[in-house]
Amino acid sequence: MNINAHSIWSDIQKIHNSVPLIHNITNYVVMNNTANALLALGASPVMAHAIEEVEDMVSIARALVINIGTLSETWIEAMQKAMQKAHELKKPIVLDPVGAGATPYRTATAQKLIETINLTVIRGNASEIYSLVGEDTQTKGVDSTQQSEFAIEAAKSLAQRNKCTVVISGMKDLIVNADQVIQIENGHPLMAKVTGMGCTATALIGAFLAVNTDAFIASAHATAVIGIAGEIAAHQATGPGSLQIHFLDALYKLKKEDIEEKLKFYKI
Amino acid sequence: MNINAHSIWSDIQKIHNSVPLIHNITNYVVMNNTANALLALGASPVMAHAIEEVEDMVSIARALVINIGTLSETWIEAMQKAMQKAHELKKPIVLDPVGAGATPYRTATAQKLIETINLTVIRGNASEIYSLVGEDTQTKGVDSTQQSEFAIEAAKSLAQRNKCTVVISGMKDLIVNADQVIQIENGHPLMAKVTGMGCTATALIGAFLAVNTDAFIASAHATAVIGIAGEIAAHQATGPGSLQIHFLDALYKLKKEDIEEKLKFYKI
Amino acid sequence: MNINAHSIWSDIQKIHNSVPLIHNITNYVVMNNTANALLALGASPVMAHAIEEVEDMVSIARALVINIGTLSETWIEAMQKAMQKAHELKKPIVLDPVGAGATPYRTATAQKLIETINLTVIRGNASEIYSLVGEDTQTKGVDSTQQSEFAIEAAKSLAQRNKCTVVISGMKDLIVNADQVIQIENGHPLMAKVTGMGCTATALIGAFLAVNTDAFIASAHATAVIGIAGEIAAHQATGPGSLQIHFLDALYKLKKEDIEEKLKFYKI
Repeated sequence: MNINAHSIWSDIQKIHNSVPLIHNITNYVVMNNTANALLALGASPVMAHAIEEVEDMVSIARALVINIGTLSETWIEAMQKAMQKAHELKKPIVLDPVGAGATPYRTATAQKLIETINLTVIRGNASEIYSLVGEDTQTKGVDSTQQSEFAIEAAKSLAQRNKCTVVISGMKDLIVNADQVIQIENGHPLMAKVTGMGCTATALIGAFLAVNTDAFIASAHATAVIGIAGEIAAHQATGPGSLQIHFLDALYKLKKEDIEEKLKFYKI
Repeated sequence: MNINAHSIWSDIQKIHNSVPLIHNITNYVVMNNTANALLALGASPVMAHAIEEVEDMVSIARALVINIGTLSETWIEAMQKAMQKAHELKKPIVLDPVGAGATPYRTATAQKLIETINLTVIRGNASEIYSLVGEDTQTKGVDSTQQSEFAIEAAKSLAQRNKCTVVISGMKDLIVNADQVIQIENGHPLMAKVTGMGCTATALIGAFLAVNTDAFIASAHATAVIGIAGEIAAHQATGPGSLQIHFLDALYKLKKEDIEEKLKFYKI
Repeated sequence: MNINAHSIWSDIQKIHNSVPLIHNITNYVVMNNTANALLALGASPVMAHAIEEVEDMVSIARALVINIGTLSETWIEAMQKAMQKAHELKKPIVLDPVGAGATPYRTATAQKLIETINLTVIRGNASEIYSLVGEDTQTKGVDSTQQSEFAIEAAKSLAQRNKCTVVISGMKDLIVNADQVIQIENGHPLMAKVTGMGCTATALIGAFLAVNTDAFIASAHATAVIGIAGEIAAHQATGPGSLQIHFLDALYKLKKEDIEEKLKFYKI
């Protein structure tokens, strides 16, 4: 395992140089933020949900981002179709089970998507991840009131069962697969006051998966980058409004030295 | 009736402390702003429109916000289902009849929703409120070209017939129920140059309704808070782009002293 | 042909004075930006896509903006219905064929919309415009990797066949009709790092079409204005996040002198 400023910077350079197309089927609330964050990082976002085109779009994309934040039946069908095509073409897929645990429909949908094919990465907060293993918990909408550690066993079991990497976002971010766990302590509490920061993390994982075939490392890289850009932004911001603006600017201007100076990660 | 800096601040503290989940079925244009404004105020937003989950979502929420800004048939069905469930569970409901009066479809939809069950609060501009009582007027899309006073009799009749509070937004904001009218003169003209400021007001009313059972007072509190945060933001802004950023920051950092200093309301 | 600071300023004044209602059937990603840009320019935006109301909405609007960025079948039906009504009522229509060329579904949809009725203006990047004349090219999502000049013959043929103006956006913007081509060199590369800047250009063309019956000149005016506001914003911005905020502020505060100082256009 090789996660450091150099390995992160190398992936960022690859994103800048190859400008990977990232196909997002995501929620209405965050589409604009997600697209802007992918652009700021150097990737090329596209949002497309029509059942008539998702297979064609995923065929020209280098990663697929699925987010159930404002789900409905026709969108779920399109998600499944896109996921199956991505799987066939061996393209990485990252799932954001927004609000899983909040309603039976969201929990069942997230579980159905997980069973559709083996995903590459699943990213959520502790309550969402916990709900995916069939435990009886109730999340409060899309906010997590649980510490990241709360879902660590659920994440391990999910990672093992589905041969994927699981990212638990929270005050501490945990990157989990069947064999290992690392903890990233970048980020800032003010980020939780901006809607869709988690969705942005999921989309950026998609961009890193497009240039790094090791899903565990790609997920750690993306998680560190969003945390570091968030720290820089929070230092300049006077509230959650300006945070989101500074976040995009920080992501766009991120330097290797910023990563060297700020990266905080631990093996667990 | 007790509306002053102290009563407003008390509600804000309750929102901070209880972080009420606010269920929004709202329009595509403002979902992001609305979610961010609720977060900045201290509430927890969720957007969910699937017919399969609206009842479950409203069951765990503390208020329901309905906004017809980009309406379509499946969304209207989901709105009605959510409203009926909220009514059953005695949860407050606030309706934003965006563009009522602009097309027969919007006017009829707004009227249908009002007849579904007794709403707690209806908030719109003068043209929208006027159109709800069956008067023949034509609004120009979602902007009001009418003064708030234009709709005062319509608001009174609506409030009486539906046992609800009506908020007429404009240069002057009027809070109306069957017995009383108050006028709030906070706010700034530049706010009208930012899309969805009215929708944000409606969502914030939802948050105040979650912590204050007096709908008239809760509506006045929310209206004053958005006006005061808007004034602070307009003072710092160089145009409508920066206004929205400063607005979220101002809402997040609002102090009791700001309210004491700026609150301008009158009984009529 | 009369394109200069005076002619542009005259149209802007007409927009300010008449506040034209612009009916947008556009994509989820940019709805908020588009609405805010139209407001900053002085127009009045409305977003409405329900098949039940598009004809009524377009009847009270002064221009129709169609954008296929996040298309699906029900939206396409509504677009066609709105376009037919706009055509009947002789209202200007501008089409943004977002992602045409990226998937067969997008290309076919854009071509179907073009065949529905004679559009007033089509605006896209070089790859999108190129794909509309049935050439076999593959765009990479919504970004263009081609120079504007690449599509100039396609644009001329499209303009001739459909009796419309075609705008090719890129580092250089080209305004094309059957008889003439002009090139506008305003703008800044950082604008390409903000999602939906092209969509905003399309919406602003709608606003200029509402006050100027010469579609070629209206398109040139809108293109120059967005480029000039973008330059002012890029000069103040520290990245793509702050660019979008400064862009709205610059558009709102644009002065005739800014246009006089910065306008760069050439006949070709």
